[in-house]
Amino acid sequence: MTGCLDDAPPTFDADFIRRLEDLFKWRRDVRRFKTDPIAITLIEDLLEIAAHSPSVGNSQPWRFINVESAARRQAVIANFNACNAAALEAYEGERAALYARLKLAGLHEAPVHLAVFCDHATGAGMGLGRKTMPEMLDYSVVAAVHTFWLAARAHGLGVGWVSIIDPLELARSVDAPESWKLIAYLCVGFPEEEHADPELERRGWQAHVAQNAKLYTR
Amino acid sequence: MTGCLDDAPPTFDADFIRRLEDLFKWRRDVRRFKTDPIAITLIEDLLEIAAHSPSVGNSQPWRFINVESAARRQAVIANFNACNAAALEAYEGERAALYARLKLAGLHEAPVHLAVFCDHATGAGMGLGRKTMPEMLDYSVVAAVHTFWLAARAHGLGVGWVSIIDPLELARSVDAPESWKLIAYLCVGFPEEEHADPELERRGWQAHVAQNAKLYTR
Repeated sequence: MTGCLDDAPPTFDADFIRRLEDLFKWRRDVRRFKTDPIAITLIEDLLEIAAHSPSVGNSQPWRFINVESAARRQAVIANFNACNAAALEAYEGERAALYARLKLAGLHEAPVHLAVFCDHATGAGMGLGRKTMPEMLDYSVVAAVHTFWLAARAHGLGVGWVSIIDPLELARSVDAPESWKLIAYLCVGFPEEEHADPELERRGWQAHVAQNAKLYTR
Repeated sequence: MTGCLDDAPPTFDADFIRRLEDLFKWRRDVRRFKTDPIAITLIEDLLEIAAHSPSVGNSQPWRFINVESAARRQAVIANFNACNAAALEAYEGERAALYARLKLAGLHEAPVHLAVFCDHATGAGMGLGRKTMPEMLDYSVVAAVHTFWLAARAHGLGVGWVSIIDPLELARSVDAPESWKLIAYLCVGFPEEEHADPELERRGWQAHVAQNAKLYTR
């Protein structure tokens, strides 16, 4: 790998590529966190990195809220509990018992909660690239979440994406502006344990799922 | 950095983290490709990596089509041309002239075209995590696109995400199953040039946009 000068494109050697694959494979969705605090400057540094993600028309529509208030966190936890109870009702028998035993969020333990939104009122990008696929604005925020996740993991942090949540209620709970759509609610912290296999496999929710990388040709 | 044993979690040192930041910063959306061919085995390897992306309930709903047929590619190009002409009409005067001069896709030159879909009929994941946020299924595919993009860039390949396209017409053009929703149409090839700044800035569409990494607190 050559050094990265300010204006010379970097090249990435086989060793880097192998480590990068390790990063992708060991990323994981984390629900079991240590309660150790995280320096907020580290979160800020990771968001600086996340802000280099692709966004349609360079619109950078991501908005990050650090949810610190205990009362707001309680509201988020109540939101999750209600949605998780409703989700449980969709399963029956053995499957319902399995679901009930899963730990699907680390909202109590994670020292940092990040609510990530897409600002649908942004003027940045001047509409470029999203006339026929307006969902590109939301997708840009998903890419930023994924970048944040990877960068966090490289720093030894775990991230858990909580989607068992009413997104409109959550936006109200954290007092987000009207034009902001919730894309992700993230728990961030140091993981209690690390695994290369998904927790859903380890806990019996699903059999081992081989990676699905089939390439169709037309 | 320690080595990554089969069951020992990897750690990532400062050198790797710096290179990873280079990768994020130099990723870029590419529209200017060399026509040099790419070994399809490399694309397959990159999709193997992409398949390690996070997906809701480990549903892995991504579906990849390698669009090889010249007739299908012509249909895609006609689709893009029509949508781009319609997009141009939304701008006026100087701004329209600027838009008309932008090169917004490398569909003619890129040796590989990948159409990436989300399979809304997949049973994988058994619905877990997407009752209140069904859009999580689409978001999972966005994460896979981003992983593919990063892995491709590490291998020296450029990727351009074409969103100026009618997604339903495109799905028909590549004969995708009914339940597949188009998430991304990707041009892939070796880039003609590499830059750390977005083409939209270099070509005068927008002034320099500082990375937006603001962290709000509630």
